[in-house]
Amino acid sequence: MLSIEQLVTLFERFRKENSFQGKVAELYQPASYLMELGGKRLRPVFTLAAHQLFEDQIDRSLAAALAIEVFHNFSLMHDDIMDQSPLRRGQPTVHIRYDTNAAILSGDWMFAHTYELLSRYEPILAYDLIRLMNQTAVQVCEGQQLDINFEKMDQVTEMNYLEMIRNKTAVLLAAATRMGARIAGASREDQDNLYTMGLHTGLAFQLIDDYLDVYGVVTGKTTAGDIKQNKKTILYIKTLERADDADRTQLLELYQQDSPDKISRVVNLFDKYEAGDYLRRLTIEYSRQANNALQRVSVDPNRKSNFTSLLNELLNRNK
Amino acid sequence: MLSIEQLVTLFERFRKENSFQGKVAELYQPASYLMELGGKRLRPVFTLAAHQLFEDQIDRSLAAALAIEVFHNFSLMHDDIMDQSPLRRGQPTVHIRYDTNAAILSGDWMFAHTYELLSRYEPILAYDLIRLMNQTAVQVCEGQQLDINFEKMDQVTEMNYLEMIRNKTAVLLAAATRMGARIAGASREDQDNLYTMGLHTGLAFQLIDDYLDVYGVVTGKTTAGDIKQNKKTILYIKTLERADDADRTQLLELYQQDSPDKISRVVNLFDKYEAGDYLRRLTIEYSRQANNALQRVSVDPNRKSNFTSLLNELLNRNK
Repeated sequence: MLSIEQLVTLFERFRKENSFQGKVAELYQPASYLMELGGKRLRPVFTLAAHQLFEDQIDRSLAAALAIEVFHNFSLMHDDIMDQSPLRRGQPTVHIRYDTNAAILSGDWMFAHTYELLSRYEPILAYDLIRLMNQTAVQVCEGQQLDINFEKMDQVTEMNYLEMIRNKTAVLLAAATRMGARIAGASREDQDNLYTMGLHTGLAFQLIDDYLDVYGVVTGKTTAGDIKQNKKTILYIKTLERADDADRTQLLELYQQDSPDKISRVVNLFDKYEAGDYLRRLTIEYSRQANNALQRVSVDPNRKSNFTSLLNELLNRNK
Repeated sequence: MLSIEQLVTLFERFRKENSFQGKVAELYQPASYLMELGGKRLRPVFTLAAHQLFEDQIDRSLAAALAIEVFHNFSLMHDDIMDQSPLRRGQPTVHIRYDTNAAILSGDWMFAHTYELLSRYEPILAYDLIRLMNQTAVQVCEGQQLDINFEKMDQVTEMNYLEMIRNKTAVLLAAATRMGARIAGASREDQDNLYTMGLHTGLAFQLIDDYLDVYGVVTGKTTAGDIKQNKKTILYIKTLERADDADRTQLLELYQQDSPDKISRVVNLFDKYEAGDYLRRLTIEYSRQANNALQRVSVDPNRKSNFTSLLNELLNRNK
């Protein structure tokens, strides 16, 4: 069995062997640029590790793993335009480095290329993977739309927020995981279990991101970027829900403006109403569900060690 | 056999029965808005008419016809952003009516929905249709990129231009036509013939558009919009190729500026070098090839009457 590190290496080799090429270079350069910026390759690793639960011949999952990573980067490329983000992984985003048209069109091409990669499989298998991709792509669009909607909404509930991150983030990790299992020939029940594991891991992962954005040790990320951008995360939602009238008014006002002490005042309110603790408990609950789903997968527990350590690492990180 | 008009009616009924719906209305409204603006429904009609060459039970092609029309509208939605077009079919474009983010994201959703519609078919058939869609989508992206590139290039050859419109416009009509034949169970040879017919029809159609833009009776379209936008059409390319040094310099200069008599002076040069005649001959050649491909389709000639009159109408129009 390959280690996580070996899975990343295997994927990176395949990705480079399948670099974007064609007659119209301007279409592929922005895509290659974004893919080369790196990232954790979390989704491809989940695809390959899911396959490896069932058998060692995991090469067959590489095209699906790449498809998922290409789709992920497509969605980043378009989201960065919509969110007017100047940086991605510390480098200029595609619409800044090239221009908006390049980011739109190269993104569209990546979307098409996702389906090209999935169509490399034999018909019946390709059909299954493509249907899962369709459903996932629609959900990711819905998640991004909900995220945009929330900016203009006064009232966002915890359930709204969880639905948004489920669609925008978690379903892609879930689909990535399921694809590996499907390609390995896993039973439908095990595919379902692995989808559930990916989904809850994705939810917990995003919630940890939200937590660390405010409470984490400083990393490359802008600290408290969510507060600066008035993001209605669980921390905000829970504080608003629990706050007395005065604090509630104060928090609403803080999220309307850009005062110099905005971050510290917002964090004070989060702390006063123990929103961080609530978020941590929620995260632990999703982590537990992810682990439970992994336990239900009907393979020798020894084969699960990769995922056990992956989940442990992802869900107990502090940066 | 249904007439062209009946095919349009059948398609429109199916389209309305399959209106865009889901949990996140903001995602579907811009897509519905654009689809409702109408248009000739040329591509769906080609899908249905191609199916009808082989058998009368054409309902089975409706989902593919809609997929093609959804994809076409997706590409219009994104192209209109890139080209900064304010109007589409006489109405505000999506990025004007809503905003750029809506046009990006709703377009992405339409792309995903294209594949959802194609995935309604049974696996083997869906797989074939999806592979054709993949190839077509990549070509359409390439065509749009070439179109963007040409704006910045000094020298665009006739071959460059034809490659661009082939990708940007013709392959989608070709794919639409092939899909109808494929769903009807036509032989590979007949599918190839119909693809060729659609391709050459698409090329001729675009060249006629280019001709009428300059020489047509005034319609809803801005007359000579291509000259205003410095589009390097065949008229421009051929004139530049044939012109003496002085005229060549003059044309290049005219395409760099925005003088009040720009259009009349450019048209004078087109006329002097008989670029319009050249374009007409080229169009006639593609029309002939489209008709030849139709003739080769191995069905009773009576069944071809729809396409014969369709091609005749499309390729001899004067507006």
